[in-house]
Amino acid sequence: MTRAPVLAIDIGGTKLAAAVVEPDGRIAAYDRIATPARPGQDAEDLWRALESLLDRVTEQGRVTAQGGVTEQGRVTEQGSEIAGVGVGCGGPMTWPAAEVSPLNIPAWRGFPLRDRLRERYPGLPVRVHNDAVCVAIGEHWQGAGQGRDNVLGMVVSTGVGGGLVLGGRLVDGASGNAGHIGHVIVEPQGPPCECGGRGCLEAIARGPGLAAWARAQGWRQDQGGDATGADLAEDARQGHPVATAAMRRAGRALGIAIASATHLCDLEIVAIGGGVSQAGALLFDPLEEALRAHARMEFARRVQVVPATLGQTSGLIGAAALLHEGNRYWNP
Amino acid sequence: MTRAPVLAIDIGGTKLAAAVVEPDGRIAAYDRIATPARPGQDAEDLWRALESLLDRVTEQGRVTAQGGVTEQGRVTEQGSEIAGVGVGCGGPMTWPAAEVSPLNIPAWRGFPLRDRLRERYPGLPVRVHNDAVCVAIGEHWQGAGQGRDNVLGMVVSTGVGGGLVLGGRLVDGASGNAGHIGHVIVEPQGPPCECGGRGCLEAIARGPGLAAWARAQGWRQDQGGDATGADLAEDARQGHPVATAAMRRAGRALGIAIASATHLCDLEIVAIGGGVSQAGALLFDPLEEALRAHARMEFARRVQVVPATLGQTSGLIGAAALLHEGNRYWNP
Repeated sequence: MTRAPVLAIDIGGTKLAAAVVEPDGRIAAYDRIATPARPGQDAEDLWRALESLLDRVTEQGRVTAQGGVTEQGRVTEQGSEIAGVGVGCGGPMTWPAAEVSPLNIPAWRGFPLRDRLRERYPGLPVRVHNDAVCVAIGEHWQGAGQGRDNVLGMVVSTGVGGGLVLGGRLVDGASGNAGHIGHVIVEPQGPPCECGGRGCLEAIARGPGLAAWARAQGWRQDQGGDATGADLAEDARQGHPVATAAMRRAGRALGIAIASATHLCDLEIVAIGGGVSQAGALLFDPLEEALRAHARMEFARRVQVVPATLGQTSGLIGAAALLHEGNRYWNP
Repeated sequence: MTRAPVLAIDIGGTKLAAAVVEPDGRIAAYDRIATPARPGQDAEDLWRALESLLDRVTEQGRVTAQGGVTEQGRVTEQGSEIAGVGVGCGGPMTWPAAEVSPLNIPAWRGFPLRDRLRERYPGLPVRVHNDAVCVAIGEHWQGAGQGRDNVLGMVVSTGVGGGLVLGGRLVDGASGNAGHIGHVIVEPQGPPCECGGRGCLEAIARGPGLAAWARAQGWRQDQGGDATGADLAEDARQGHPVATAAMRRAGRALGIAIASATHLCDLEIVAIGGGVSQAGALLFDPLEEALRAHARMEFARRVQVVPATLGQTSGLIGAAALLHEGNRYWNP
C-alpha cells in the first residue's frame, strides 16, 4: 500500500475526470470536463485538454508530481508528492502497455497513453486498466463488494462492461480483458452486437440498444435518435409501458448473464452501476426473476445482486487502487 | 512441491480409480474397479470397496502410509512413504471439508470422505476437490494446458463439468464450485436441466441428453434407453445422420458456452475431455463454427480449443497435483 496520494484519471466518451485519491480511498481533489469531441479533432487536442484538467486537479489537491520521487509520502512546501498515476480508460487497449483506442473516442486510435503520462510524470509508476475494470475494483475496495472475495462489478450504460475479482484478487486473463460480461451470450439468435457477434448481453441491455428497441415499439419516436438509456430509465420510473418493458428486457438478459457468470466463477456478489442501473427495481426485479430461474444449484442460489454504491467516482477510486492496493489489483 | 509420491483417487459413478503418482506426474501404480452399485447398497459397502482398491494400489506401488510422516520422501524398506492423499470426486460436496453427495453415487449422501481418509491415513494431508476440477488441473499441469496461464478444462460425458485456471492458479470461487461451465446458459428457452434451471450447456451436450434427443429423432429406438453418448459418438463416426446431427447440436452449444467463458475470463486455451469429446471433428468442427461466430473481439479470437491429452488418468494426475503443486492448485 502506498502512503502518498495517487493521481487518478477516468477517461470515457462522455467525460474526462481526475482526482487526487488518498491511501484510504478518500478523494482530496476532483474535477471533470466533457470529453472534447469537435469534428476534425486530433489526438493532441484531446491530450492537451486532459493535461489542463490534470494541472487543475493537482493544484487543487496541493500535490506535486515533479518526478524522481524516492521517498513516498514526503510532504513538501507544495504539498504531498504523488506516488503514481492510475488510469481507467475505455477499451480496447493493449495491456499493460496501454496503447488505447476507446470505442467512443475516435480521436485516439492506438494512442500511447501510458507512455505519454510517463513522459509527463517522469519516474512515477503509471498503471492503466479498462474503465469498467476500474469500477469493479473501486466497488471491491471501497463499495458494494467490500470484504467479499469473489465479486463481479458491472457497468450498464452506453456499453456493458465489468471486472472480475476472484479469490480476493483482480483477474486479468491472458491480455487484461477478463471481465467482459457484456459479451456473455444470452440469446444466441438475438440481435447483432457491435463486437461482430450476436446475442451478447451488451447487444440487448446497453442503453442505446434498449432505446432503439423502445423506439421500435413507439417510445419517443418524435425525438429521433436523441433519447438515451437514461431517458428510458426515467420514463420507466414514470410508468411508461414501453420503457418499463425495455427495462424488463434488459433485466432478464442481465439475469441470464449473471447466472452463467455465477456458475462459471462461483461469485458471492454482483455490483451493478451505470446509467441504466438507475432504473432501480424496474430493472432489478426482472433481473432477479431470471437469475433465480436459472441459478438453481445451492452454491449459485447464494449469489447477491446489488446496486453499486460509489456512484460517479467508482472508476477513479478503482484507478487509484491500481497503486494503493497493487498487490491485489495489479498483476500484469 | 512434494518430493514423495502421492496417493491419488478418482471417484465417479462409473469407476473408482487409484494411483501412486510421483512428483513429476508419472504414475507408479494404478488400479480401478467398476463403482459398486448393488440395489440397497449402503455407504460402508462402497467405502470398503474403495479401501481394498487403495490397499492393492499402495502395495503395487511399494509405498506405505503408516501416518505420522515427518520427513517427506523418506525411503523405507517397504518403499517410499506417501506425502498425502489427493482425491477427485463427483459433486456436489462441501468444500474443503468434503462431505460428498455425488449425483451418480446414491449410496453416499453427505459422506465424510475427507475425514474417513484422514482416519485411514493419520497425519497425512488429505485434499479433495471436484472430479472435473481435477481433470482441469491435470490438463494444466501435465496435459493440453501446460505452460498456459489461463485455461478452462472441460469434461463432456454423463455430465458437463470443468475447472478454471486463471493467472496460473486454480480458481475455487466462494465455495469451491468455480468451473461449472456445464451450467452456463446457451439457450434460455431450451430444455430443462437436472440442476433445476433451463437451457444450460449440460442439458444439451451431456451424453444422456444427446442420446435422448437422438432417440426422439429415430436413433436406436429399439434399444430403449440403453444406448449412450459414447455409442452416439461412435455412430456419428460411422456416418449415421441423426448421430451426426446430435454432435452438431452439442458442438454448437459448446461453442456458445466457450465464447461466453472466453469473454468473461479472457482464456488462452480450452481443453475438452470425456466420452462425448471422442467424436473428434464431428464435435469440434461445429464447436469452432459457433465459437468463431460469437467470439469476434480480437482477444477472444485468440482462444484455442483442443482435445484433452491425458485421457483416463487426467483426474488422478490432477488429484495428485492438489499436493504436488499445492501452491498453484490448493487455496481453500
